[in-house]
Amino acid sequence: MTDNLRFSGVVPILATPFHTDESVDTASLDRLVRFMAGLGVDGVTVLGVLGESNRLSDRDRELAIRTAVAAAGSTPVIVGASHPGTRATLDLVKMAADLGARGVMIAASAEPVPNDDRLFEYYRRVGTDSPLPIVVQDHPASTAVHMPVPLLVRIAKEVPGIVGIKEEAVPTPPKLRSLIAALGPDGPTIMTGLGALYGLFDLEAGSAGFNTGFAFPEVLMGMVEAMRAGDTARARSLYTRFLPLIVFEQQPGVAVRKEILRRRGAIEGNTVRHPGAGLPPGAEAQLDALIEATLPGVDLTRPLDLARL
Amino acid sequence: MTDNLRFSGVVPILATPFHTDESVDTASLDRLVRFMAGLGVDGVTVLGVLGESNRLSDRDRELAIRTAVAAAGSTPVIVGASHPGTRATLDLVKMAADLGARGVMIAASAEPVPNDDRLFEYYRRVGTDSPLPIVVQDHPASTAVHMPVPLLVRIAKEVPGIVGIKEEAVPTPPKLRSLIAALGPDGPTIMTGLGALYGLFDLEAGSAGFNTGFAFPEVLMGMVEAMRAGDTARARSLYTRFLPLIVFEQQPGVAVRKEILRRRGAIEGNTVRHPGAGLPPGAEAQLDALIEATLPGVDLTRPLDLARL
Amino acid sequence: MTDNLRFSGVVPILATPFHTDESVDTASLDRLVRFMAGLGVDGVTVLGVLGESNRLSDRDRELAIRTAVAAAGSTPVIVGASHPGTRATLDLVKMAADLGARGVMIAASAEPVPNDDRLFEYYRRVGTDSPLPIVVQDHPASTAVHMPVPLLVRIAKEVPGIVGIKEEAVPTPPKLRSLIAALGPDGPTIMTGLGALYGLFDLEAGSAGFNTGFAFPEVLMGMVEAMRAGDTARARSLYTRFLPLIVFEQQPGVAVRKEILRRRGAIEGNTVRHPGAGLPPGAEAQLDALIEATLPGVDLTRPLDLARL
Amino acid sequence: MTDNLRFSGVVPILATPFHTDESVDTASLDRLVRFMAGLGVDGVTVLGVLGESNRLSDRDRELAIRTAVAAAGSTPVIVGASHPGTRATLDLVKMAADLGARGVMIAASAEPVPNDDRLFEYYRRVGTDSPLPIVVQDHPASTAVHMPVPLLVRIAKEVPGIVGIKEEAVPTPPKLRSLIAALGPDGPTIMTGLGALYGLFDLEAGSAGFNTGFAFPEVLMGMVEAMRAGDTARARSLYTRFLPLIVFEQQPGVAVRKEILRRRGAIEGNTVRHPGAGLPPGAEAQLDALIEATLPGVDLTRPLDLARL
Repeated sequence: MTDNLRFSGVVPILATPFHTDESVDTASLDRLVRFMAGLGVDGVTVLGVLGESNRLSDRDRELAIRTAVAAAGSTPVIVGASHPGTRATLDLVKMAADLGARGVMIAASAEPVPNDDRLFEYYRRVGTDSPLPIVVQDHPASTAVHMPVPLLVRIAKEVPGIVGIKEEAVPTPPKLRSLIAALGPDGPTIMTGLGALYGLFDLEAGSAGFNTGFAFPEVLMGMVEAMRAGDTARARSLYTRFLPLIVFEQQPGVAVRKEILRRRGAIEGNTVRHPGAGLPPGAEAQLDALIEATLPGVDLTRPLDLARL
Repeated sequence: MTDNLRFSGVVPILATPFHTDESVDTASLDRLVRFMAGLGVDGVTVLGVLGESNRLSDRDRELAIRTAVAAAGSTPVIVGASHPGTRATLDLVKMAADLGARGVMIAASAEPVPNDDRLFEYYRRVGTDSPLPIVVQDHPASTAVHMPVPLLVRIAKEVPGIVGIKEEAVPTPPKLRSLIAALGPDGPTIMTGLGALYGLFDLEAGSAGFNTGFAFPEVLMGMVEAMRAGDTARARSLYTRFLPLIVFEQQPGVAVRKEILRRRGAIEGNTVRHPGAGLPPGAEAQLDALIEATLPGVDLTRPLDLARL
Repeated sequence: MTDNLRFSGVVPILATPFHTDESVDTASLDRLVRFMAGLGVDGVTVLGVLGESNRLSDRDRELAIRTAVAAAGSTPVIVGASHPGTRATLDLVKMAADLGARGVMIAASAEPVPNDDRLFEYYRRVGTDSPLPIVVQDHPASTAVHMPVPLLVRIAKEVPGIVGIKEEAVPTPPKLRSLIAALGPDGPTIMTGLGALYGLFDLEAGSAGFNTGFAFPEVLMGMVEAMRAGDTARARSLYTRFLPLIVFEQQPGVAVRKEILRRRGAIEGNTVRHPGAGLPPGAEAQLDALIEATLPGVDLTRPLDLARL
Repeated sequence: MTDNLRFSGVVPILATPFHTDESVDTASLDRLVRFMAGLGVDGVTVLGVLGESNRLSDRDRELAIRTAVAAAGSTPVIVGASHPGTRATLDLVKMAADLGARGVMIAASAEPVPNDDRLFEYYRRVGTDSPLPIVVQDHPASTAVHMPVPLLVRIAKEVPGIVGIKEEAVPTPPKLRSLIAALGPDGPTIMTGLGALYGLFDLEAGSAGFNTGFAFPEVLMGMVEAMRAGDTARARSLYTRFLPLIVFEQQPGVAVRKEILRRRGAIEGNTVRHPGAGLPPGAEAQLDALIEATLPGVDLTRPLDLARL
């Protein structure tokens, strides 16, 4: 096992772009990965919830991983590889490894009767056989699985290959604090997500950064840098300024985020796979006003120059 | 039926204050109602989700309504009166009416097999026999009931006494637009909630105001006034400035909000009824920093003077 | 605390009879309790799920308890007293005690974030202050709460006043075996429910009897007696013969069971409170055929004479 | 589209057999299909819930379909091809068609916001492009999707290629009656499942037969034949005799059913894929007693001779 994956800083969760016929748009995915790598992010994650992973066939997944790895260069690609079956999870993990991914993100699946020992065993089996380092995703809103702190700590300490936790169980700050206290400075790192909705509060509570889909990773990079430099005021100022955009973007439905990525020139179109919802009527006009108010006259297709904003 | 209740502007959802032994703190509730009335809100709602209504006995409810009505003076008191049983809902509605409430808020309850006709019939029976005007609450996050637009429209148009809809199904803006288009200018008004998380976007989509628990209603009043005056920039500016506080406050758990109300002098303590969670470790310090950054040097116990902020 | 309640044998869960206007039919409830007591059951439970407890006001509950206690004579009355709030649960428990109940049945309520420690604390607080012995109900199908064996054992061993567990988490036999092994012969007893659907298998696994609503408790009494006498063949024969009726009756919806109780002369009508479903079309004819095939020519209003069947 | 698939009689849902290392045991699947075909069933369904479809990779699915089709001879093979994504569903449908399946079974997937129009569109798109006839599965217990009768009727009438509905929403008899009345004699046929728990009552209500996993399809075939011949007494007698076995087998967890199939010589082992539960302690002994009581001295590996039982 190589576990030279640093899980900290800013690791965007990528949308999976589709053509209008809903086939995977590999050219856009290539462009999206290069766009993110060009911003200097610490990695990218494909096939997460935002990547509409649940609407993809295994062949689509293969295509997306292959495309992302080829485009990423030295930027690590983490692959969402969760599956309700343990053995099938390992199949996905091995496919990711074979295709050159640098890590996998694994969320637990809901079973009719929740059982912490079985959840642990799920991670233990996957961790034992995985050739790649593992990020544990704790996101009850999408999984309906609730992992109490002691279970997460047990997984983090006893399962080989766990390098990070993506913590998205609200309220995140107290859970972050408990995890960090229990895991210590040498344990797996903890990043947060949820579109950075609680970004400032997560950083205050010790988050190592953001593993999320906000379409302006530059802002999150600026916040992380400011906090590392002890400049809370700067982090707060960035957070406050962009929070309306963060809030608007994290509304349920991937279409808004895809539309912003489209405006940034990172992907061709905002098509969402059925039965996911497309851009609702009125959203475009709201987005126009919101972006104009937040970034007046700014060319979105270029990296934001936070120093000049 | 008297339906002279205007459901628009800002109608705060009130917390139910408790003593440390978890009995209802009527003195604090009295103070809280007077505090809100003193701000000039358009009404107050007691016994909502934020009011920990689900953890109260019918006797507690009676006590809370009696206290709120006595304190409210001419400010209308709307009472949450939802119950899984239709007849028991009517019992609560009648208690509210007998005690002097001016309206009731009714959310549907989840049944093992969802059934739109039965939901309609629930509202029809309640509306037919209710002596008070009714606000329909659409909040799937707490009810697990999903009410499609046509069902809400049917209820709003066919059930007697419906004066408003509290719309809290995310994403709210497109649902607001659909409802407003279908109901027309003479139909029930639609307010939004969710702690005002989507406040600006809701107003843009036509929300008549806020029926929610944000502990600084002055800000929401300022936003509503600005939008009514056509000053979107002012509404956006208020929203942006206070959004970190809005986001922090709407985290799951009532304790943060109670703590802010305590700091505002509106209630005595932040006790939450078991098994609700108390204030998590670290939240107090985060709140200190957040309030200091948002309202530096401001006396929270006085109404905010938005003009001077 | 008096905990002289024996939780074993057959303790029927009672329906709450209603008039056609959905008010509580106390005359029928009186008749129903006397009917059951006349069969020689070991107790009766009112205000369970089958008793449509979730559709009752606190005043309805008081009326039902008062009626049942008055009718029950020396037969113990156990009262369902679950409530999402801990303090409100205690209010219900105290009302039950004041009205002469002999025990209470308490199920946990689902919280947004499941938490075993908080569940334990719920039972600890209730058990510490309850003047009545407590039956813990484990019925995830209605509560959406999953209580693993170690949690149930901890509650049973550490909370004062726990005299029994009503175990209804499927599959019941392995959970029964684990609980019995952990609790030992001096611990709380465990009865099963679910309409006796798994009756024979539950008894084989060590169930102390049935705490359920099957409208022919005589059959369950016969099964329990047969198992106590070591006559498994007799228990199996009774189970097999009546299983179609058991299966038909335990279908979702209380109306079928109320209709059978009506035919037995135990209650006046089969009215279910809205929004509960009434007897579906076709059910009556199926029931006619089923009863005729199972109990040809038998007068249902008299206790079944199992020896002669 | 060929839609010469008759969806009636008895079409067993097949388990997916695994080696002890959880790889697909194709030899056992071959044997299982031949066993069922040898009984004269009207078809077999692979990759349903019972087939642990949710724990399989797409490659496992391909292997299972290929094996089943090769073994089935002229017995039609129906393939479970449900997927949360519409396009991915079609990928699975096309794979099934390419591999020689004769039909597909499609269940809807739960979306965060239920939406009947979107559900209809799901079936419409699949039906329009599917080269195979389609069975709509209505099984809320596994899907958490509730499809009201009018929606099912709309799908059945307007979507091309729908040949049947597998109706498993409890209580099944009233829903069956409503569907049959609405669809008429020339519409899609409706079979029932749920392990035949409600077998007699489903047939009485008009079910065209059983599409379920009960390991003794001979019994279900006998019941269907008896009902077709107007001999309700015979159907009732078979149902009553085997009902304890039916009840025991339909307990949650696939392991019991796999163990019975193992005893029947149809598969090699009862391995369930992790995180599914294996055979619980005590179940084997209960099964011994149950089978001995139900089928004393009978060689389970041979087809049951109902006439001689």
